[in-house]
Amino acid sequence: MHHSPKNAVPRSAAALKAPLDSFSRRHLGGDASNTSALLEALKLDSIEALMDAAVPAAIRLGRALELPAAAGESEALRELRIHAECNTLKRNFIGQGYHGCVTPAVIQRNILENPAWYTAYTPYQAEIAQGRLEALANFQTLIIDLTGLDIANASLLDEATAAAEAVGMALAVSKHSGPLSVFADAACHPQTLAVLRTRAEALGVAVLIGSARDAEFAPGVFAVLVQTPDTLGTVHDFRAMAQRAHAAGALVIAAADPLSLVLVEPPGEWGADIAVGSTQRLGVPLGFGGPHAAFLATREALKRVMPGRLVGLSHDARQKPAYRLALQTREQHIRRDKATSNICTAQVLLAVMASMYAVYHGPEGLRAIARRVHQLTRMLERGLRAIGLTPLPGAFFDTLTVALPPEQREQWISRALQQGMNLRRLEQGVGVALDETAEWADVVRLLVSAGAPEDMDFDLLAEETLNAPGSVENRTSAFLTHPVFHKYSTETEMLRYIRGLEAKDISLVHSMIPLGSCTMKLNATSEMLPVSWPEFAQMHPFCPPEQAAGYIRMIQQLQTWLAEVTGFAAVSLEPNAGSQGEYAGLLVIRAYHRARNEMGRQVCLIPTSAHGTNPASAVMAGMEVVTVVCKPDGDIDMDDLRAKAELHSERLAALMVTYPSTHGVFEEGIREICELIHRHGGQVYMDGANMNAQVALCRPGDFGADVCHLNLHKTFCIPHGGGGPGVGPIGVAAHLAPFLPNRQQTGMAPGVEAISAAPFGSAGILAIPWMYLRMMGPEGLLEATRLAILNANYVAARLEPFFPVLFKGRQGWVAHECILDLRGFKATTAEDVAKRLMDFGFHAPTLSWPVAGTLMVEPTESESKAELDRFCEAMIAIHAEMTAVETGQAHPTNNPLKNAPHTAEVVCGDAWDRPYSREQAAFPADWVRSRKFWPAVGRIDNVWGDRNLFCACAPMAE
Amino acid sequence: MHHSPKNAVPRSAAALKAPLDSFSRRHLGGDASNTSALLEALKLDSIEALMDAAVPAAIRLGRALELPAAAGESEALRELRIHAECNTLKRNFIGQGYHGCVTPAVIQRNILENPAWYTAYTPYQAEIAQGRLEALANFQTLIIDLTGLDIANASLLDEATAAAEAVGMALAVSKHSGPLSVFADAACHPQTLAVLRTRAEALGVAVLIGSARDAEFAPGVFAVLVQTPDTLGTVHDFRAMAQRAHAAGALVIAAADPLSLVLVEPPGEWGADIAVGSTQRLGVPLGFGGPHAAFLATREALKRVMPGRLVGLSHDARQKPAYRLALQTREQHIRRDKATSNICTAQVLLAVMASMYAVYHGPEGLRAIARRVHQLTRMLERGLRAIGLTPLPGAFFDTLTVALPPEQREQWISRALQQGMNLRRLEQGVGVALDETAEWADVVRLLVSAGAPEDMDFDLLAEETLNAPGSVENRTSAFLTHPVFHKYSTETEMLRYIRGLEAKDISLVHSMIPLGSCTMKLNATSEMLPVSWPEFAQMHPFCPPEQAAGYIRMIQQLQTWLAEVTGFAAVSLEPNAGSQGEYAGLLVIRAYHRARNEMGRQVCLIPTSAHGTNPASAVMAGMEVVTVVCKPDGDIDMDDLRAKAELHSERLAALMVTYPSTHGVFEEGIREICELIHRHGGQVYMDGANMNAQVALCRPGDFGADVCHLNLHKTFCIPHGGGGPGVGPIGVAAHLAPFLPNRQQTGMAPGVEAISAAPFGSAGILAIPWMYLRMMGPEGLLEATRLAILNANYVAARLEPFFPVLFKGRQGWVAHECILDLRGFKATTAEDVAKRLMDFGFHAPTLSWPVAGTLMVEPTESESKAELDRFCEAMIAIHAEMTAVETGQAHPTNNPLKNAPHTAEVVCGDAWDRPYSREQAAFPADWVRSRKFWPAVGRIDNVWGDRNLFCACAPMAE
Repeated sequence: MHHSPKNAVPRSAAALKAPLDSFSRRHLGGDASNTSALLEALKLDSIEALMDAAVPAAIRLGRALELPAAAGESEALRELRIHAECNTLKRNFIGQGYHGCVTPAVIQRNILENPAWYTAYTPYQAEIAQGRLEALANFQTLIIDLTGLDIANASLLDEATAAAEAVGMALAVSKHSGPLSVFADAACHPQTLAVLRTRAEALGVAVLIGSARDAEFAPGVFAVLVQTPDTLGTVHDFRAMAQRAHAAGALVIAAADPLSLVLVEPPGEWGADIAVGSTQRLGVPLGFGGPHAAFLATREALKRVMPGRLVGLSHDARQKPAYRLALQTREQHIRRDKATSNICTAQVLLAVMASMYAVYHGPEGLRAIARRVHQLTRMLERGLRAIGLTPLPGAFFDTLTVALPPEQREQWISRALQQGMNLRRLEQGVGVALDETAEWADVVRLLVSAGAPEDMDFDLLAEETLNAPGSVENRTSAFLTHPVFHKYSTETEMLRYIRGLEAKDISLVHSMIPLGSCTMKLNATSEMLPVSWPEFAQMHPFCPPEQAAGYIRMIQQLQTWLAEVTGFAAVSLEPNAGSQGEYAGLLVIRAYHRARNEMGRQVCLIPTSAHGTNPASAVMAGMEVVTVVCKPDGDIDMDDLRAKAELHSERLAALMVTYPSTHGVFEEGIREICELIHRHGGQVYMDGANMNAQVALCRPGDFGADVCHLNLHKTFCIPHGGGGPGVGPIGVAAHLAPFLPNRQQTGMAPGVEAISAAPFGSAGILAIPWMYLRMMGPEGLLEATRLAILNANYVAARLEPFFPVLFKGRQGWVAHECILDLRGFKATTAEDVAKRLMDFGFHAPTLSWPVAGTLMVEPTESESKAELDRFCEAMIAIHAEMTAVETGQAHPTNNPLKNAPHTAEVVCGDAWDRPYSREQAAFPADWVRSRKFWPAVGRIDNVWGDRNLFCACAPMAE
Repeated sequence: MHHSPKNAVPRSAAALKAPLDSFSRRHLGGDASNTSALLEALKLDSIEALMDAAVPAAIRLGRALELPAAAGESEALRELRIHAECNTLKRNFIGQGYHGCVTPAVIQRNILENPAWYTAYTPYQAEIAQGRLEALANFQTLIIDLTGLDIANASLLDEATAAAEAVGMALAVSKHSGPLSVFADAACHPQTLAVLRTRAEALGVAVLIGSARDAEFAPGVFAVLVQTPDTLGTVHDFRAMAQRAHAAGALVIAAADPLSLVLVEPPGEWGADIAVGSTQRLGVPLGFGGPHAAFLATREALKRVMPGRLVGLSHDARQKPAYRLALQTREQHIRRDKATSNICTAQVLLAVMASMYAVYHGPEGLRAIARRVHQLTRMLERGLRAIGLTPLPGAFFDTLTVALPPEQREQWISRALQQGMNLRRLEQGVGVALDETAEWADVVRLLVSAGAPEDMDFDLLAEETLNAPGSVENRTSAFLTHPVFHKYSTETEMLRYIRGLEAKDISLVHSMIPLGSCTMKLNATSEMLPVSWPEFAQMHPFCPPEQAAGYIRMIQQLQTWLAEVTGFAAVSLEPNAGSQGEYAGLLVIRAYHRARNEMGRQVCLIPTSAHGTNPASAVMAGMEVVTVVCKPDGDIDMDDLRAKAELHSERLAALMVTYPSTHGVFEEGIREICELIHRHGGQVYMDGANMNAQVALCRPGDFGADVCHLNLHKTFCIPHGGGGPGVGPIGVAAHLAPFLPNRQQTGMAPGVEAISAAPFGSAGILAIPWMYLRMMGPEGLLEATRLAILNANYVAARLEPFFPVLFKGRQGWVAHECILDLRGFKATTAEDVAKRLMDFGFHAPTLSWPVAGTLMVEPTESESKAELDRFCEAMIAIHAEMTAVETGQAHPTNNPLKNAPHTAEVVCGDAWDRPYSREQAAFPADWVRSRKFWPAVGRIDNVWGDRNLFCACAPMAE
């Protein structure tokens, strides 16, 4: 089908007009001969025959998607460049939690633009993820040191949700009874307050807003949230406030600017219990709002209610220190509706960037940056006072607020704009925030725009400033004392450090990552290139909207296209992770019921097979979870569903259903299920994790779902970044559209107030799905879905003789993934198989989910038959090793499965007393020799790590 | 000195104005504490004390360089962006050997923008270079297949010099006697003729220009050069011409467009003996003229006179196939003045890109591209005829020429320009060349600019074209049949292929590459970023000069700065490799003597220690080489020099001298040497390979050199690209300035006509040295030279107790490199040491040059003391192993040195019968464990490979 010699001769004007660099043949795992070979192996006549057999006819979309025809790679890039050029880049002095910064070029090129970093998966398989785990341990150390607290996680989604998560922690440990409330300082960033209000409302918690330093904390106040420096720039002394809060039984949460903490006494030292914030300004581009890594640090005592990913140190089978994710038992995928957060990802790629920024600059470099920003701000402040403008009194770091009447305010803002500078428009006046990129000339221009004479003696102003008292600097404690922050300050050393860590991690640059439900498809370079364009990367989320015209157009197109793909009326791109999409979708349903005065609709039905995030999100959305049983074949038990729907009919809010099911099957009864829920007044929330099996074949909006989230980082090619960023937009049917998060709209709306800090979530990476859809077109998307399903069925068929395929559709086919049952083996666990796959150079499939003792394989459409065959051969070879153990031919514990993975040090060690050979250990298949990937450490002891929790950089004694 | 906490507090206005992201601390290998530790180890009080001791006072520059003060990284990039934006990008239809093309994004990001590829060195150490060697074997296979010839080299500098090299081959095997001449078809590209004239003149060979198809070849014609398609676009049948040429005893050289060869009968099939051309259009950006990889293919019989690098297959110690550089005995570094070419590099990075383009597209993809270009050109041709413009008759591929009177020509060209299109201005009319990026819309716009009505029925025109006869396609032979051109057509597979090859090669991302005379310093990302900017990457070398205003400004600044650095009056950036610089410099000297009517000055004195390129270049420049003896301490024997200068006084043209000497020492007598030569009427050519020891300390122009070449890829940070590109500009004193290559000047000039195909050589990478100089400033450059010398002396001092340091200056110090004498050991060779270093993860220093049995170490200023220490520890550990062999403690041949390097397969093999342990083999130092690099193959058998020469992709049987 693709580029056969005969077809390549242009025979018509149309052929001459078609792009030469069509993308779908690059995205898909193979050409026509690849597909033929797969079909032949499955004894199928055509790929369409498989679609007919695997996908219920009742839900098939009978037409092509109405999307623009596929553009070639260059053409799509040209088109997107036009959007980019509609953005206008100004110098930003807006602040409000987002600051210009310099991404060191060595980090930009070797992390942000390096597929070995951005295509890696979440580090669940820690033995082949030591590189990013070390970088995340650096991140945690950085945050612990800056905040002066005991423990920090490996990043959260953004500052606003991190603040809300902190409030959730306080709630979880609160001993108050009766009506609960959180006290939020009025000078928190407005987006933080918006997210907090949204979250609290669903939980039935009141938000009291006032001046924390002056407030008496009423009974029931379990948390106090303050911002430092506050949104107007003032650095307060919160020590007395913290004491009062503690006395009132409230925890103190500080949303803090990390750069300010280089100079200013950290929250942990003045009494805060939790600190949150954004590390964006540590070398991460603005991206019109994201993605950036937020942080959360807290005291030792609260570590078990801390949300999100946490990297901890443990050791491997030979006692060598090794990092891995710690305390996972507190996470939603285990605790489900008992979890205190639904967060199940992090912003790894961005946290890695921020941590590398700190490694590169070291404490002295950060201090130099912070001091320069601060001194320039002091110079600006003195200059403003000299011309009669008086910034708010009090200490400040890098942000000033000048109270001004509206007319004068607009004058200054518009004069500044004329000179290419964005200031912050505040109700009470003008805000000006400097950052790492601010220079002498900026201060001069700012002063002139404020009315200073151009011939003002700025040198004198600077000298006076520098010799006057009034620096905010009062931090006395050391930070970043670990050697890692002192060894890599040259570009050569930094480059080698980054590349050395990279070499420890398996990513898509090595081999397929067949993760069920995670859709590790190609993240094409043409999709990634625009992320680095300055017009996208350097846009401030709160710039005047007309400056972001190109962004808005791109976003609107993407919304339209995603609406067409899902069959919905409207799409919101605000949720910046799948979990946030789930939560947002449920809040929309909640708002809908409330708008209809059906406040009582609070029951959310969730099948037992659902991902743990579903119940966790439902609880956060103020719903009550009722579980629906699944049948042995994996389908929802219709009888149970009917009974539960009936039972809760009047209180029914929603059903959460994953489609195709988490068992990898297109359930036949999905239409019936949706109708049933609707009959009882409920809404159907569809989890879009498995959307890759549906695109262009069928649409949730057509067969009854009311809302659906999408994982743009699964189905739509945003890379996993080693464990984030994700983007989780929601699509909704027309009746729910008014309730979508609505900050981008003017005027009041009845909907959800705010899900993420930024109005468009992680806007900076939306170019990726835009490029994917633009380059694939309706035909390419259809082909992708078909091949994803064909590939999964091929793997299922090849491995079925060895490992039973657990669930299939009515006609015996799986959807885009298959579950391999390993439970027939008693001596070898699924984990052993996962670790042994590392010796073959493969990342394991999804382990023991949704069924313990299984592996869920999702090959995606981007893998070739050759790669699928290698994976199947590895599994078959492992099967033989497992059989040898079962039959007693191999030792029950001293065997290559239990000892996996095998490091080079073990295999090359002088001592070898194992009953199997070194070659079997290292090169278990012949083709492994030419592509050997060596795990950096042996099997890691997770239990020991959790019992001896240590979540910072390993001591250098190692 | 660098960023200590106290210094970081801005205390003055000046401090507030200084950049935060100053670059020299990133470029240099360490901060003040690093320098202190080095000084302490050498018992030196200050680095200046070392300079005083190592560098003769008589030549020291007593002031700072007059260069702009260092800009921060962002500031320098901003400044360069302003230059870039002064370039105007138009759609180019100029052709003339340079064509727009699409660099596949996966190749752009993972090769061109990937330090693991661009920082690698020339693959002399083949065991740790199998990745790029395989890519180059792919390149050679591509060229063999496209040209239909037997053997191809691993690339040359550009098409014009490749054509001249081919003529040199023909000359080398010519059996003619009497006056010799080369016949060049008048329709060759003008730049090719210009370079050919330049080369031939120096060799005393006449260039006859005419129509090759019609000519009778006179006696003495030893080569006929034709272009296909010719520069006007016509594809001729050269079969009869080739027969006539052969009958006359001449070889036939075809300069061929590689894309046309996809469709058109290849030169090897119609009788050409040699084919040359440029692979630029196979995915390599235009870059205003370079760098690009040229090719040269020939018949089996001529392989031993083929110039340049040749990759051949051999096998390793375990008979595993392995690539390495073949037939090196024919190269200049061995044959010196007997060599038939002075070429000692290739364009590896660009050849790798072109080869990957072919791997990605495969034969079908290339055919689709070639056919589309051709059919669009046919459509254009038919359209032009329809509106009464008649292109030249005859077959064509992608280029048309329309003969027009000047007025009409200018009208069309200016109408096209108004629509953003560059056409080629020819004396006889207008040239239009289409390329891979040409689209339907371009053809329409071209026709309209030529006068076609806008409502012309272009669809009809296309259909008529496609159904009419007249396609040029007549190639019947298959090409790219090797599986490598069929396996990686998806982006996922391509990415993994690129990354898999990358993983086999050591580069600067792993460890220091301490190559004497090669200066493997940091290639900083900020220096590399502008290379990818479209305003630099997509500029055609023959576009109207006003469109390249930004390039010209950047080039002029760079010339000015390099003139200041070297102390010369003028600089030419045209030579695109060091060898070309040498040659250009000697031609300038030659032109100078001739302009003074001193035609007899033809003797070039060259010390025995000189690099082999020196005599080879001298011979090519028509000079007679007379060797000057060196003393045992490495210095030039002044008595011998005086005697030779005296003896040849009237015929003395030049002395070629390397400074500091190739022995790594600042010779005291350099001023005296220069004066002596001048006294005898000669000119002093200084080889700038060791310029890294001089920058900001002393200047060749000050102490007597008249001309000097610079290796921008050594001293000025252009990366080595795995074996090219290089850039070798020359600086000259005022009296020589009129003789510099002069195409960039208007009017006639007395100088050298053309050295490279493009007027500014490899202009596309000149941003790299521009950024380096701009970011370092005078102080940073001085610091760099100082640290380079300090580092070399530190290594010399640490290793001297183990390996004698062969040469030192008068006060006992070396310059920027040191030579370690291994000749005291009888059982272990320098090669064994080089291979054993691989087991430590190090690339060997320069081997057995300039003295057999030695290693020459140049650490550069970019390495930290920690890295130097690891290297020294490796050498000391190797010394212990060598000693064990000498004393009989270790086996004379079965020892870790002779068996090095050790592959993972060997060390993990079930059989191990060696008298040393596996751990000693694999982890010879403890720190190796955490940064182990595994060589992909064992010791390669070079002799076997040369005896069984095979220079294409290895058969898949492997």
